[in-house]
Amino acid sequence: MECTKCNENGRTIDPAVQELFKKAADEGIDTAWDRYEQQKPQCGFGELGLCCRNCLQGPCRINPFGEPKTGVCGADADLIVARNLLRSVTGGTASHTDHAYSAVQLLRLMTEGKAEYPLKGAGKIAGVAAKLGIDTKGKKDEEVAREIALTALADFGNYSDAPMKWLTATAPAERVDVWGKLGILPRNPDREIRRAMHATAMGVDGSPMNLLLACLKSGLIDGYAGLHLGTDIQDIIFGIPAPVKTEANMGVLDKNKINIIVHGHMPEVSEKVVEWADKLSAEAKAAGAEGINIAGICCSGNEVLMRHGVPLAGNFLSQELAVITGAVDAMVVDVQCFMPAITKVASCYHTRIITTQGIAQLPDAEHIPIEPEHADEGAQKIIRLAIEAYKKRDAAKVSIPRHKSEAWGGFSVEAIVGALSKVDAANPLKPLVDNIVNGNIKGAVGVVGCNNVKTTQDAFHVELIKELLANDVLVVATGCSAQALAKYGFLCPEGAQKYAGKGLLAVLTAVGEAAGLGGPLPPVLHMGSCVDNSRIGDLVGALAAYLKVPIKDLPVVASAPELQHEKAISIGVWAVALGLMTHIGLPPPVLGSPLVSKVLTADIEGITGGKFYVEGDAHKAAQGILAHIMQKRKGLGL
Amino acid sequence: MECTKCNENGRTIDPAVQELFKKAADEGIDTAWDRYEQQKPQCGFGELGLCCRNCLQGPCRINPFGEPKTGVCGADADLIVARNLLRSVTGGTASHTDHAYSAVQLLRLMTEGKAEYPLKGAGKIAGVAAKLGIDTKGKKDEEVAREIALTALADFGNYSDAPMKWLTATAPAERVDVWGKLGILPRNPDREIRRAMHATAMGVDGSPMNLLLACLKSGLIDGYAGLHLGTDIQDIIFGIPAPVKTEANMGVLDKNKINIIVHGHMPEVSEKVVEWADKLSAEAKAAGAEGINIAGICCSGNEVLMRHGVPLAGNFLSQELAVITGAVDAMVVDVQCFMPAITKVASCYHTRIITTQGIAQLPDAEHIPIEPEHADEGAQKIIRLAIEAYKKRDAAKVSIPRHKSEAWGGFSVEAIVGALSKVDAANPLKPLVDNIVNGNIKGAVGVVGCNNVKTTQDAFHVELIKELLANDVLVVATGCSAQALAKYGFLCPEGAQKYAGKGLLAVLTAVGEAAGLGGPLPPVLHMGSCVDNSRIGDLVGALAAYLKVPIKDLPVVASAPELQHEKAISIGVWAVALGLMTHIGLPPPVLGSPLVSKVLTADIEGITGGKFYVEGDAHKAAQGILAHIMQKRKGLGL
Repeated sequence: MECTKCNENGRTIDPAVQELFKKAADEGIDTAWDRYEQQKPQCGFGELGLCCRNCLQGPCRINPFGEPKTGVCGADADLIVARNLLRSVTGGTASHTDHAYSAVQLLRLMTEGKAEYPLKGAGKIAGVAAKLGIDTKGKKDEEVAREIALTALADFGNYSDAPMKWLTATAPAERVDVWGKLGILPRNPDREIRRAMHATAMGVDGSPMNLLLACLKSGLIDGYAGLHLGTDIQDIIFGIPAPVKTEANMGVLDKNKINIIVHGHMPEVSEKVVEWADKLSAEAKAAGAEGINIAGICCSGNEVLMRHGVPLAGNFLSQELAVITGAVDAMVVDVQCFMPAITKVASCYHTRIITTQGIAQLPDAEHIPIEPEHADEGAQKIIRLAIEAYKKRDAAKVSIPRHKSEAWGGFSVEAIVGALSKVDAANPLKPLVDNIVNGNIKGAVGVVGCNNVKTTQDAFHVELIKELLANDVLVVATGCSAQALAKYGFLCPEGAQKYAGKGLLAVLTAVGEAAGLGGPLPPVLHMGSCVDNSRIGDLVGALAAYLKVPIKDLPVVASAPELQHEKAISIGVWAVALGLMTHIGLPPPVLGSPLVSKVLTADIEGITGGKFYVEGDAHKAAQGILAHIMQKRKGLGL
Repeated sequence: MECTKCNENGRTIDPAVQELFKKAADEGIDTAWDRYEQQKPQCGFGELGLCCRNCLQGPCRINPFGEPKTGVCGADADLIVARNLLRSVTGGTASHTDHAYSAVQLLRLMTEGKAEYPLKGAGKIAGVAAKLGIDTKGKKDEEVAREIALTALADFGNYSDAPMKWLTATAPAERVDVWGKLGILPRNPDREIRRAMHATAMGVDGSPMNLLLACLKSGLIDGYAGLHLGTDIQDIIFGIPAPVKTEANMGVLDKNKINIIVHGHMPEVSEKVVEWADKLSAEAKAAGAEGINIAGICCSGNEVLMRHGVPLAGNFLSQELAVITGAVDAMVVDVQCFMPAITKVASCYHTRIITTQGIAQLPDAEHIPIEPEHADEGAQKIIRLAIEAYKKRDAAKVSIPRHKSEAWGGFSVEAIVGALSKVDAANPLKPLVDNIVNGNIKGAVGVVGCNNVKTTQDAFHVELIKELLANDVLVVATGCSAQALAKYGFLCPEGAQKYAGKGLLAVLTAVGEAAGLGGPLPPVLHMGSCVDNSRIGDLVGALAAYLKVPIKDLPVVASAPELQHEKAISIGVWAVALGLMTHIGLPPPVLGSPLVSKVLTADIEGITGGKFYVEGDAHKAAQGILAHIMQKRKGLGL
């Protein structure tokens, strides 16, 4: 598929979505972009972070150009912005932590024989146990898995002042030291979340700097009680991803099959749907379909893409359009990033929206709980509901864009190191580092995050990465960013020739051929879901350890060009805490405070080595990122 | 002091505050009321709860009169309002829970010999232990106290689905049953707080009803992991309050003494200040003062009023004015309800603002940590800083209003039952119930909560209670409401003659005389701080148990006429969950959703038996409350 800017109204560069816009318009259906238009102009106070609703004497607003300069309680712009930011970061952190906690509980129940999930990631157990200091000698996998789950739960029950174990066990020691000196090492993650909500209530923390330190601490919770814990446990339960080929974009929907979209974030749900779609395929055929076709959206899609090669229907802003194809029989959601609007869109079709989690319901959806103890029963119900819906599908309303691209996923750290070890078995990171040193690879960028209606769908991801690849920057991706890049051929070997600079191409080809792929690696390595940003953290940490330098000295940058969710902010804060310059394509609501803006984009570099870099233009962002990479190379004497 | 409406601009009925307004104006100092004027008009979207800032595609706003009806993601008014409400309630719940957790940690450290606090509430231990099922036989107080602390911490480490023990142990069994059937029994309180933050993030819970149930659950956390836990543990540490006489309003400041205000919520801080003020009085005298005078504001004030008779300088909206007297040498704050503005006001005087808690700092304040392990050192520093400040006091700037009233506090449940047992030792509640049955007492109202600049300071508390007392309603009070009533003579025996109806007066006199007070009880019983609302809950629960009816059938109403803080909302939700009609003088930001408004003020009555009653006029509210009481009496056949 050609990546073009054939995009009259600036909404998207995705030709499938563009095609479906016409269908939506014909059928009189609004999408997120229409609702965004209706919201304009958005509130300037809110955009700047200058609105406070934390008590009933408000809402208060600070005038950035004059009076009033304080709210009723006396809170000024800096305080209000910092307080709002901490609540946002906490929203993201709580989301990731709650997701990881569900996985831990699932693993615990599995080891008690109470959950209908087999243990598929035995290969992950030893490594995680070693980090946690759990002795595995003479123990069965299930026993060690149980100790791992209980160690995780012990973090959530920790009432001492000791920092959370999952962090000290998995973060680089140099970083733990830096964070310890800053006083931001989280103890029990839940205790810190509660404390952040307390600190931001009326008449509690009045110090913007103290609140910004609490933001950093919250970012660490996100990174370790959310991302790292989530990935580790999900790998133990569902297996470590390995390279797998699939396809991406609406063309993966199949008009002859029952199409079920998995959407959200919990593999606990999407794995079961995949499993039972296979097991009940005969029933699908009996209903007249050629079979059942599962396709993913957002990170539930990424999870089963990474582990099963389940194709991808689209990313965040594609979710309503997938339904508008008229070919989706059921959309199964779990938690996070599904728009409340989908039930309204679905009501124009035969599509059933199915919620599965107690804390994430929709008034007009079918609620079929997927819980550890009864997951099989729930998944069967879901598949059968989809089959029933399929029978009511209106062929006249079906229009599936043909666009799709080959895409590879499954690049866990284990998989990447595995591929590199084909080049140097004794020292797998050496080929990568050698090529950074010799300049074939200038540096690396992890590109992550969402779509956002405020920026043309996928355009920023694509334009930024095109320019970075051409400049020999190694790119890894997760989340909706990986999905954006998947749609335009960045995740397939062919893309290497098309997009990678000469030096980078040579490395991708050498590693790809050594690994037996018969050609180059894809120019962008899909490392998984948003939770799997921990994999990027681990890779960067391993590089730093190999080079014996802190992460902050590496020619590595993080980027979330089209961020939307509070989770993206909390992940970004973690990346900055790790020591990475973290590019974001649009600012969180902090610009109302010169102090907070300055701390986040400049001063913090003196503390963690990382900082936020806000740039809304893809070319300028690429240049800024490249300049930073070159500066870091210089710092390393390269 | 006469309670008048001599209040030209509608700001306050407090003559001391009025007097100080003139001083503030002369000295060019703004207060909360001035800042409120500068904020007008406040944002209508925010006031209605129709503004969503939960993701970076926003801020979105719903037009209550037309389009747009949904935000970018499709969230409508009901969803946005419910989501915002849950975050507010969570802010309140997290604040109370974090406060209680600090007390639990202090108690734990005390039993490890690590905290510089003596165990003063041995008399509370047996009762709490019995409720928790802790065997006390042959154990020392410290041992049992330790088991109690660890039981509390076990709730915070609970990863099972069992409900939190502090709730099941201390809430009425009938309520536990109702809440269990509703599926809102909280498990680990921190886990639920985290989950509420997750549920309210973008693309998670899309069901307003589900979110409202989560609000109820959060209210229960507030009630039991916050209030009840907090009161129980604080009573064990600092002692069970008993009736004590003191004075209230600015006149308690003494120009010949070093005046230190304790302000905030944690007795852990205010107790130490009181202790060391006494121990270091010689140093104060050496500095030329007649001694050290501690006075309270907000609940830190209430805590030491309840246990030591420390006088009260004022309530929430008086805090800046206290500084404006020019006679306050130090204001010591801990957490919650201190305005960030106080440092600016203090900068016009010699007054030192001293913060004591890590999560509650102020850029221009002195930070002296008061931590369990080093509390004595911190408290001494505070006292000495106040002495130093006193030396710089400018006598020309001192003007202390003379207004003050006699006030009694210390009416814990234990104290009330103690007084009643002087009438009927075998059956202490009988005299109270008999008088409700015979109509001497029509019913009871617990009046609680804050001041709010949107309503004339104290006026609603005073006017409402005046009318209720005249109609033979028994009134108990906590928080800034008790402080408001203290200032106008409602908390002294004399007030009984002045305000109580004939029937009520007879009962107050009979009990007061039997208890050896030589006259009536005060017409309003001061039951403590906002955390001590648990005492009201216990009293109401005991009444219900005695009558063998659910709380919802009692002629009892809760009221927060001038609520301001998120904590007031979470307490209100708890009261509604308990089954009480809960009057609030101004609405939380929910009016933008007809659904949420209807559920909270009507439908919920069919579920918990309680409901919110929003009425902004004191007389109408009194009539509404009386009507509800009469209806409940009728229901009981009275």
